Amino acid sequence: MSKLVVGMVGFGVVGSSVLKALLANRNIISARAGKEIELKRIVVRDEAKAHAKLKNLNATDVKVSTNIDDILQDCEIEVVIELMGGVEVAYEIAKRALEVKKAFITANKAMLAYHRYDIAPLANGMPVGFEASVCGGIPIIRALKDGLSANHILAIRGILNGTSNYILTQMQQYNQDFHTALNQAQNLGYAEADPTLDISGGDAGHKLLILASLAYGINAMPEEILIEGIESIMPDDIEFANEFGYAIKLLGIAKKQGNEVELRVHPSMIKKGAMLSKVDNVMNGISVIGDYVGESMYYGAGAGGDATASSVVSDIIAIARGESAAMLGFSQPLEGNEHLKLKSIDEIYSQYYIRLYVCDKPGVLGQVSQILGQHNISIGAFLQKETNDKNIAKMLLSTHHCYERDINAALLELERLDSISQKPYKMRIEC
Amino acid sequence: MSKLVVGMVGFGVVGSSVLKALLANRNIISARAGKEIELKRIVVRDEAKAHAKLKNLNATDVKVSTNIDDILQDCEIEVVIELMGGVEVAYEIAKRALEVKKAFITANKAMLAYHRYDIAPLANGMPVGFEASVCGGIPIIRALKDGLSANHILAIRGILNGTSNYILTQMQQYNQDFHTALNQAQNLGYAEADPTLDISGGDAGHKLLILASLAYGINAMPEEILIEGIESIMPDDIEFANEFGYAIKLLGIAKKQGNEVELRVHPSMIKKGAMLSKVDNVMNGISVIGDYVGESMYYGAGAGGDATASSVVSDIIAIARGESAAMLGFSQPLEGNEHLKLKSIDEIYSQYYIRLYVCDKPGVLGQVSQILGQHNISIGAFLQKETNDKNIAKMLLSTHHCYERDINAALLELERLDSISQKPYKMRIEC
Repeated sequence: MSKLVVGMVGFGVVGSSVLKALLANRNIISARAGKEIELKRIVVRDEAKAHAKLKNLNATDVKVSTNIDDILQDCEIEVVIELMGGVEVAYEIAKRALEVKKAFITANKAMLAYHRYDIAPLANGMPVGFEASVCGGIPIIRALKDGLSANHILAIRGILNGTSNYILTQMQQYNQDFHTALNQAQNLGYAEADPTLDISGGDAGHKLLILASLAYGINAMPEEILIEGIESIMPDDIEFANEFGYAIKLLGIAKKQGNEVELRVHPSMIKKGAMLSKVDNVMNGISVIGDYVGESMYYGAGAGGDATASSVVSDIIAIARGESAAMLGFSQPLEGNEHLKLKSIDEIYSQYYIRLYVCDKPGVLGQVSQILGQHNISIGAFLQKETNDKNIAKMLLSTHHCYERDINAALLELERLDSISQKPYKMRIEC
Repeated sequence: MSKLVVGMVGFGVVGSSVLKALLANRNIISARAGKEIELKRIVVRDEAKAHAKLKNLNATDVKVSTNIDDILQDCEIEVVIELMGGVEVAYEIAKRALEVKKAFITANKAMLAYHRYDIAPLANGMPVGFEASVCGGIPIIRALKDGLSANHILAIRGILNGTSNYILTQMQQYNQDFHTALNQAQNLGYAEADPTLDISGGDAGHKLLILASLAYGINAMPEEILIEGIESIMPDDIEFANEFGYAIKLLGIAKKQGNEVELRVHPSMIKKGAMLSKVDNVMNGISVIGDYVGESMYYGAGAGGDATASSVVSDIIAIARGESAAMLGFSQPLEGNEHLKLKSIDEIYSQYYIRLYVCDKPGVLGQVSQILGQHNISIGAFLQKETNDKNIAKMLLSTHHCYERDINAALLELERLDSISQKPYKMRIEC
């Protein structure tokens, strides 16, 4: 049986799992790949630490070095696996690997969010595998690239970040507030010491951009799309959601209407009956609507060394089989979507949930509904409750469909009222 | 742009959708395939009917004939799509297509259930696409073949038949009995006039065998595995399930333990929290547990012309791209699973639900529990209710884990008791 020799940059949690899988599942992997897979060399910052890890994994024949050239200049190595993270340095490695005609595999969503359209032309037919970059073990890249390839993708809605989903699940199922749930996520290792990228929606935004490129061939940078995190969600919002049958999820949303695509990441209320509403704790789920297939959904572990390694190794196997892992959709706009452009955030047309804290005096509800009405916003559900502070009442309401620009204008006006005691908060309701 | 010319055998619901998709999504399909796809000829039984359909679809340039040789002997046609159904005639077409070196695509689960291991050696490197054969639009074949290829598959549990899932959902959500729900499914076009293959578990069995081949490289015929349908489920069973927090689903189950694989299709009680329990109505869902990826789940429309066409066309696109759609797992046992064999049904180790109708007199519960105990079966939950017939009580109970052979022996013994008024019914509880 012939051999495919690979080199790896980075030897953290995912890298260790990749090596572990290659060793433990060697028989089945080589049967499916049609070739033996040999991990020849790992490039790391700390050689001693790497040697210790290799000893633990019983893999002391794997070479270690601190110089990327030891992989790039090794003619035997046909595939470079980048698992080091970061944006610019990782992009540099992608460029250099493709320059010397090595296939390239990455789990790096941040790098792809910024450089996917730079890498595609460099690939020039060389396979680039990135199944691991979105939602760890869920084969969602292949679903979009291969399984659903006959479809115009009408919409993607994804729970793309396990950390924030864990926090929201805790808040909703155990009535925890945001900070308690975040602390618990940190204690359990589900959230980093600095959890910003996860809870701010940034990580989900990176993944959404990769999916949107596959679906729509649309090039957008993280800074160009609406990204809101979950930091401002309060127990009152949870209470409203429970009362009216919603789950609160951080969704990445891509939707095509006419020749415009809207891309956005934000907390969303979704009906408790929907499949996505049942994706709880650290799990990820992506619902995709295609014009022929209808709705399909993909569910699984979105992070973790072993799950992510499952996707990295699946890319190695695909390359061994000689399958074209070309970066479809990144290299050029898809013909059918040639004129797709990014929709302005103002044009989002949605239902909204609004949380207001108001001075508890006569006439306030009238003021609020008048201002909403002036902006073409009509109220759907309404819930008013007393607070601990007897002078403040909370008004929680949902609206019928309206435009984002109208909601924003109305909230700005409401904020200026004397009777409003805190900046109003809005959350989109996704049906 | 170069061209891939295909021919199609059969022009029913799925065939019409395939043509419709090729026409309506022509731009995006050719962009993703890298080639124009031309459906040149359709072979049918009734030419006049086909011409009328083509006129309706604005596709009168597609040729029609009643002779399969018009496709097989046409050198321009590189791919044969079989959508006619049936087992032996379809297999004959597969053989002949591969003999003349044409790629072969099929949506025919019954034919693959019997002949997948006959076709594989004939393919001899020619692509064989069968994404549409299992669960219509859900790309579960690709998930197992590609996305999860790094994993040993520990278990597959699938709701593989939409008709029976619709009936069970109606029974559980609206307290309908089996026949009312079946009638409703027929009126809505979800069940055939002769619904046998769907409700007996036969159709799900065909799909399970295809999935099991991909996961385990195991060759088994439908007659060799346990297949039970949903015909015997009664409102009492639903009542027990609701009382103890279970959903009832017809599951196809494949599990590996040691060097044995168990394959079985039967109604199952599953905990209401599980993702699979939420796959309702005509939808399909497949949960796959891999040793690295953990649990992942795939959900979508399991039938219907458009959803199935989505998968057929995805196979055409893959062939156009030159991807190896080889029948991995069918051609030879996977190396890592070389010695896998089918587990005996007697060796199934499961929890069970049991329904007994007993004469309502003292001592019967004692008799029942004594017989169960003699067969190493201990009772978990227990529910006894009066029936309309005052002399008959129903006993509904669940057991702890035990062996299928013990349950069967105990039920046989119970059936012989004078105090048991009907053949006992058992359902497996899947955790």
